Amino acid sequence: MRLNDTIVALATPSGAGAIAVIRVSGPEAIKIVAPLFKAKSNKNIQDQPSHTLHLGNLVDGARILDEVLISIFHGPKSYTGEHTIEISCHGSSYIQQEIILLLIKKGCRAAEAGEFTLRAFLNGKMDLSQAEAVADLISSENQASHQLAMQQMRGGFSDEIQKLRQELLDFASLIELELDFAEEDVEFANRDEFMRLVAKIQNVLKKLIDSFAVGNVIKNGIPVAIVGEPNVGKSTLLNALLNEERAIVSEIAGTTRDSIEDEISIGGVGFRFIDTAGIRETQDVIEGMGIKRTFEKIAQAQVVIFLLDAEMFKVQGSKFKDEIEKIQNKFPQKPLLVIANKIDQLSEAEISNLTVSLSAVEGSNLNSQFPNLIAISAKENIGVEELKSKLLEFVNLGELRNNNAIVTNSRHYNALLSALEEINKVQEGLNNNLSGDLLAIDIRQALYHFGEITGEVTNDELLGNIFANFCIGK
Amino acid sequence: MRLNDTIVALATPSGAGAIAVIRVSGPEAIKIVAPLFKAKSNKNIQDQPSHTLHLGNLVDGARILDEVLISIFHGPKSYTGEHTIEISCHGSSYIQQEIILLLIKKGCRAAEAGEFTLRAFLNGKMDLSQAEAVADLISSENQASHQLAMQQMRGGFSDEIQKLRQELLDFASLIELELDFAEEDVEFANRDEFMRLVAKIQNVLKKLIDSFAVGNVIKNGIPVAIVGEPNVGKSTLLNALLNEERAIVSEIAGTTRDSIEDEISIGGVGFRFIDTAGIRETQDVIEGMGIKRTFEKIAQAQVVIFLLDAEMFKVQGSKFKDEIEKIQNKFPQKPLLVIANKIDQLSEAEISNLTVSLSAVEGSNLNSQFPNLIAISAKENIGVEELKSKLLEFVNLGELRNNNAIVTNSRHYNALLSALEEINKVQEGLNNNLSGDLLAIDIRQALYHFGEITGEVTNDELLGNIFANFCIGK
Repeated sequence: MRLNDTIVALATPSGAGAIAVIRVSGPEAIKIVAPLFKAKSNKNIQDQPSHTLHLGNLVDGARILDEVLISIFHGPKSYTGEHTIEISCHGSSYIQQEIILLLIKKGCRAAEAGEFTLRAFLNGKMDLSQAEAVADLISSENQASHQLAMQQMRGGFSDEIQKLRQELLDFASLIELELDFAEEDVEFANRDEFMRLVAKIQNVLKKLIDSFAVGNVIKNGIPVAIVGEPNVGKSTLLNALLNEERAIVSEIAGTTRDSIEDEISIGGVGFRFIDTAGIRETQDVIEGMGIKRTFEKIAQAQVVIFLLDAEMFKVQGSKFKDEIEKIQNKFPQKPLLVIANKIDQLSEAEISNLTVSLSAVEGSNLNSQFPNLIAISAKENIGVEELKSKLLEFVNLGELRNNNAIVTNSRHYNALLSALEEINKVQEGLNNNLSGDLLAIDIRQALYHFGEITGEVTNDELLGNIFANFCIGK
Repeated sequence: MRLNDTIVALATPSGAGAIAVIRVSGPEAIKIVAPLFKAKSNKNIQDQPSHTLHLGNLVDGARILDEVLISIFHGPKSYTGEHTIEISCHGSSYIQQEIILLLIKKGCRAAEAGEFTLRAFLNGKMDLSQAEAVADLISSENQASHQLAMQQMRGGFSDEIQKLRQELLDFASLIELELDFAEEDVEFANRDEFMRLVAKIQNVLKKLIDSFAVGNVIKNGIPVAIVGEPNVGKSTLLNALLNEERAIVSEIAGTTRDSIEDEISIGGVGFRFIDTAGIRETQDVIEGMGIKRTFEKIAQAQVVIFLLDAEMFKVQGSKFKDEIEKIQNKFPQKPLLVIANKIDQLSEAEISNLTVSLSAVEGSNLNSQFPNLIAISAKENIGVEELKSKLLEFVNLGELRNNNAIVTNSRHYNALLSALEEINKVQEGLNNNLSGDLLAIDIRQALYHFGEITGEVTNDELLGNIFANFCIGK
C-alpha cells in the first residue's frame, strides 16, 4: 500500500461526452498540476484556497491541450483525505488520454481500481463497509438497491456493530484484567450483565444475518424464471415488461434456446427475468438440454412464471396441467404464477372460463394449490400491470420499507456468521462457568470478526480483493 | 430560442463511472438547487461566492438522493454566461436519472443538444465558429484534428475574418455616405485604397478556401482504399495497422464482401482505411458488385494501397500488373502504393527480385510511373512501420505544421466561397467604375457571408441545425 505518491485517473465514464473529469490525488497533486495550468486570472493555483474553481488552459510547454476548469481540494478536506485536483476538460477521448499521459509524464502514477476510495479508507475518511457501499452505490440501478447502498454508506449497520464491539471490548478488558489478579479470584466483569450483552449481540447478529436473504436479492435483483412452450410469447412478455425490444421476438417456435437475462425495475425493486426453454416433451437433444437447464433456472429463481397460450389451452389443457404440476411437485415451496397469454385472441366468455378449466381435469389439485392465474396479452399490453403488482406481492420488502439495517454484502454476511459462532461459544462458556482466560479467547475471536466488517482488522490481500471490484477513478 | 428558463442535463458520458456531472444553467439555477442541497457546513449555497465547491447531500424532502459536490458559477462568469450549478454525484445511472428528474420536477427543463453552448453563443461568450469548434473538440480523436479544433475555438481564422469584415464595413459606410451627397459627386471612400483592400480580402479568402481540402480530410480522417485479391491479407494488414483484432480475419477467400472502415492515428493524423473486395475477374454476381464498389471506394479515397501476395506474384505476376495498370489508368492522379505482403514466406533473394519482376513484363510502364513498392509481412509485423511513414509522406500537412488557419467546416467553406464571389463582383464593379449604390449592394452581400461564419448574421433554423449535432449536456 503506497500512500506517498500521487495518483491520476479518469473519474467519469469512458467515451466522448460534453465534459470529462480527471482526478489527481496525493501529496504532490497541486504541485504537479500548478505549472501545467495557466489560469485566465493569471493566479497560481498553489496560492489558492481549498474548494475553489479556476478556469484556464492546460498546457504542455507551448502546446495548449485544452481549456479546463480546475477544482482545488486541500487535504484532509477532500474525498481521499489528500491534496486533490479535479480537472474538468472537454470530453474527447483523445484529450482525456493526452492529459492523463501528461500528468503521468510529470510524476503521477495511473491509479488502480478503487484506489481513491482505498486512500479515503486508509486515511480514516470512512470505514471499510462504507467504502464498499461506494461501489454498491455506483452500480445501483433501482430505488431499492440505491437505498441500501446509501444506508450502508452513511454508516448503516456498521455503526451498530461498532457500538456492540465497543461494549464487548470493555468486557474483554475487564475479564483480561481479572487474569492479572487470578490468584485473588475477583470478578471485575459482572457475569449477569455480560450474559445480557451476549444475548443482545446474538439478537442483533441473527437479525442482520437474516436480513441478508432480502439484501442479497435486492442488491442483485429478484430472480424470476419464465417457463413455457416455445412460441408462447415469452420474449414478447419480457419486452412488454421491459418496454423495449431487448429480447429477439420471433414467430419460429423454439427460437429461445439460450436463456436471456434481463433486469427491470418494478416499484423501485429490481427483478431479474430469466427466460427458459420451457419443459415440453421433446426428442431433440438440444431442446432436451434446454429443459434440464430450465429446471436449474427454476431452482435458482425466487418466483416462477408459467406462461401458456390461452388459445392453445383449449386443445392442450391437460398437457399444460401436467407441466404445471411437474413444476409444483419439484418445487412445492416456490411461488408460481400461471399466466395465460394471448387473450386478445379469445372471447370474453373464453377468458372467464380459463380458471375453471384449469381445475377441471380429474385429480388435478391445481385449483386449491394455485390461485394465481392472470390472463394477459403481452402483445397488446393487457394485464401486464396486474402481473407487475403480483410480482411485488411475492417479495417480502417489509424490512426494506421499515428502514431496518440490511446486510447486502456476502463478505459482511460471512463475518457476521463467524462472529455469531464465536458469541455462541462465549455464551456456552459463560453457562459452563468457563475460566476467564478461555472466555477471553472466544471474545477476541468475535471481536476480530466484527473488526473485519468495519476494517479495524484487515490485511493487504483483503483490501486488494475488495477494491479490485471498484472502477478505476473511484 | 428561449433563454429565460433554467435547463438541466447530464454533462458526462452516459453509463456508470466513478462520478457523473449534472449541469444546471439559467436565471433560476442557484435558486432551484439551493433548497435541494444540505451542505455539510450548513451554509446556504445562495449566499456563497462564485467559483466555490461545496460538499453535502442532495435531498428530495426527507429522502437523501446522494452525497454530492456542488460547483457554483455566478453569471456572467460561467460557460453559458448564466448562473450555473454543476452537481458532481456518484456515477450510477440510477442516481443520475433521479437527480435530473428531481430538478425537472423543481422547475428545470431538460436541455436540448448543444443548448449550453448555444446559450454561451447567444450571451456573447463566443462567436459561432468558436461554438462549432467546441463540438469538433469533443469529437477530435487525434492530434491533428484536436489542434485544428483548438485553433478554431481560440479564435482561429474568425479573428481574421472579423478584422476584414470591419475594414470592409468601414468602406461600405463611406460609400453609403457618398450616396447621401450624390448630387455633389464626392468620393469619401478612396477607390485605390478600396481596390487594395478588396485584393487583400480575395487573397485571404482564397487561402482559406484552399485550406479546406486539407482541413476536411484532417477532420474526417484521410481516406485510404486497400485493394487486393481475396485472402491476400487485407484484414491482417488492417489489424497490423490498428494493432487490434477489429476486422474479421479469415482463411476463406472472398470473406470480405462488405467494406470495413476503420480509423487509425498515424503520426497524430487520422487515416480512414477502407477495405474493399478487390478487382479480380469474377463470374460471381455478388463479387462483381463488390468490384464496382471497389472502384467507387477508390474514387473517394485520397491514397490507394494495392496489396498483393508476394508468393502468388511468382505465378500470377502479369495478372497483378494488369490490375495495377487498370487502377492507374482509371485514376492517374491518385497516389498508389503497391504492397507485397506475406514476405515471411519468401527468401531474401525473392524479396529483392520483386521490384524487378514488377517491371519485367513487356510494355509495362509500372516501373517509371510507380516507384512505391513496399515489401511487408502484416502477419509478422514486418515493414508495417515503413508503410506508415510512406502514408504520412502522401499527405501534405505543411499548412497544419506551419500553424496556418485552416477551414474544417463545410458551412464556413460555403460561406467563404459565397463571400469570395461577392468580393469578385465588387472588384469588377470597381474596375468598371460602377456607381456607389450598386457597389454597396455587393459589399453588403459579402459582409452578410462574413457574418454567417462568426454568427453576426444568423437565424433560428441555422442555429438549430448547428447545435443539433452537439451532444446533450454541452
